[in-house]
Amino acid sequence: MNKQKLIEQIKKKQSFLCIGLDVDLDKIPSYLLALDNPIFEFNKQIIDATHHLAVAYKPNIAFYEAYGIKGWQALQKTIDYLNQKYPEIFTIADAKRGDIGNTSTRYAKAFFEDLNFDSITVAPYMGSDSVEPFLAFENKFTILLALTSNIGGLDFQGLQTDTSKVYEKVLKTALSWKNSHNLMFVVGATRPDYFKTIREIAPDNFLLVPGIGAQGGNLQDVCKYGLNSDIGLLVNSSRGIIYASKGDDFAEKAKEKALELQQEMKKILSLQ
Amino acid sequence: MNKQKLIEQIKKKQSFLCIGLDVDLDKIPSYLLALDNPIFEFNKQIIDATHHLAVAYKPNIAFYEAYGIKGWQALQKTIDYLNQKYPEIFTIADAKRGDIGNTSTRYAKAFFEDLNFDSITVAPYMGSDSVEPFLAFENKFTILLALTSNIGGLDFQGLQTDTSKVYEKVLKTALSWKNSHNLMFVVGATRPDYFKTIREIAPDNFLLVPGIGAQGGNLQDVCKYGLNSDIGLLVNSSRGIIYASKGDDFAEKAKEKALELQQEMKKILSLQ
Repeated sequence: MNKQKLIEQIKKKQSFLCIGLDVDLDKIPSYLLALDNPIFEFNKQIIDATHHLAVAYKPNIAFYEAYGIKGWQALQKTIDYLNQKYPEIFTIADAKRGDIGNTSTRYAKAFFEDLNFDSITVAPYMGSDSVEPFLAFENKFTILLALTSNIGGLDFQGLQTDTSKVYEKVLKTALSWKNSHNLMFVVGATRPDYFKTIREIAPDNFLLVPGIGAQGGNLQDVCKYGLNSDIGLLVNSSRGIIYASKGDDFAEKAKEKALELQQEMKKILSLQ
Repeated sequence: MNKQKLIEQIKKKQSFLCIGLDVDLDKIPSYLLALDNPIFEFNKQIIDATHHLAVAYKPNIAFYEAYGIKGWQALQKTIDYLNQKYPEIFTIADAKRGDIGNTSTRYAKAFFEDLNFDSITVAPYMGSDSVEPFLAFENKFTILLALTSNIGGLDFQGLQTDTSKVYEKVLKTALSWKNSHNLMFVVGATRPDYFKTIREIAPDNFLLVPGIGAQGGNLQDVCKYGLNSDIGLLVNSSRGIIYASKGDDFAEKAKEKALELQQEMKKILSLQ
């Protein structure tokens, strides 16, 4: 998918909501466990109930790897379902990969070609030649961790270097890499004070923002400095939507939670 | 496996060789491609030919994920084979994972419990709560990226902070985390000038050292400051061993290359 189509979808749906598909078999309704592929069945119902309210879905790969081959099959079925039934949806493999060049190429092929995700999250610690193999894919997006939402996020990202903090160096340096027009960045909703600086460094890139809801981030705070002329935000909610109910009405309740967020987003966009 | 058993194995074999199982179907003998599980068959022959010369095997997970469900099945068969036939071998999932706490726990369970690896490589960028879930597993080892062997390795790891470089902060900070006795570190063989400083910060931890051979690192340089009283090194070679021949004699040639390195290691250990 190209960036323009993503922007068009956001404007049409009046939503920049991304839904995290982090499926935990201990948290889904028990009747699903009797089915052949409970993870996929859960995802399918969540997607069918919310696809008109969200512009992106983000399976966190850890939750699939945790179930071995069955988990991998569920991931494959989920991305195939999204690509076939809802081709307008932007898909994110939340994999946080990154390795030396020839190995990153392998990961890029696995997620961009074989699974056919639109994007993947990548960790920056190993530098240029660990990220550029992902950037080489056109109309695919590399979403680089910049400033993460978790407690330990500032342990190294917040270190002061000679001229700026490490996460600022990551942003600036990455924008100098080949094919940096294919970059997006992960910035946690729990760091609202940093969005102004981040938008000064990266005014044009989409930001994938996890951390609203369960982790304590707030949509208004994120939008204050995060929005740009392309809207430029994908705000993720996982647990707050997909586990809104543990009962048989989980998809219906997920829809209600997604609608709440979409309505809040619509309101924010109308004030721009 | 506990640390003492690893040290005993190293002393017995007079080897601290780790063999990287980075299987590429384009590089293995064509007759294997006709078999049910060519990746596993390749690994099995390499392992059978070299297990007396190496103390550790390290599949890079990217090479398995690149083949989707079949790759995952090959990984499962490979680790099962190692654990059943050669239980003295130390196994490393080269996965470079790391995510927010509950997600890292998922990755840890996938690799430590379901697949039953002895260790996993982890990226430090997300800080304490992304790594501590791995460290919580006793007799399992978390091998944290400190200073990597690739060209871009210094892009961020080499940044000067107020008191030291980023990779030094990673070493020092990680050693303050809970269960840090379960830590090892990745340090590239292409950075011999850094080993003295690293051993001052982390005198007791095992170092996993990639980058000899194809990447240009040298065993003598690594050992000069890298060895400690427990030996404390696992030096990895992947392509230099497993692709020593592309013909039907690949396992025999791999054994020859492994023997060369083991003999060099034996000589170095005899001079300690």
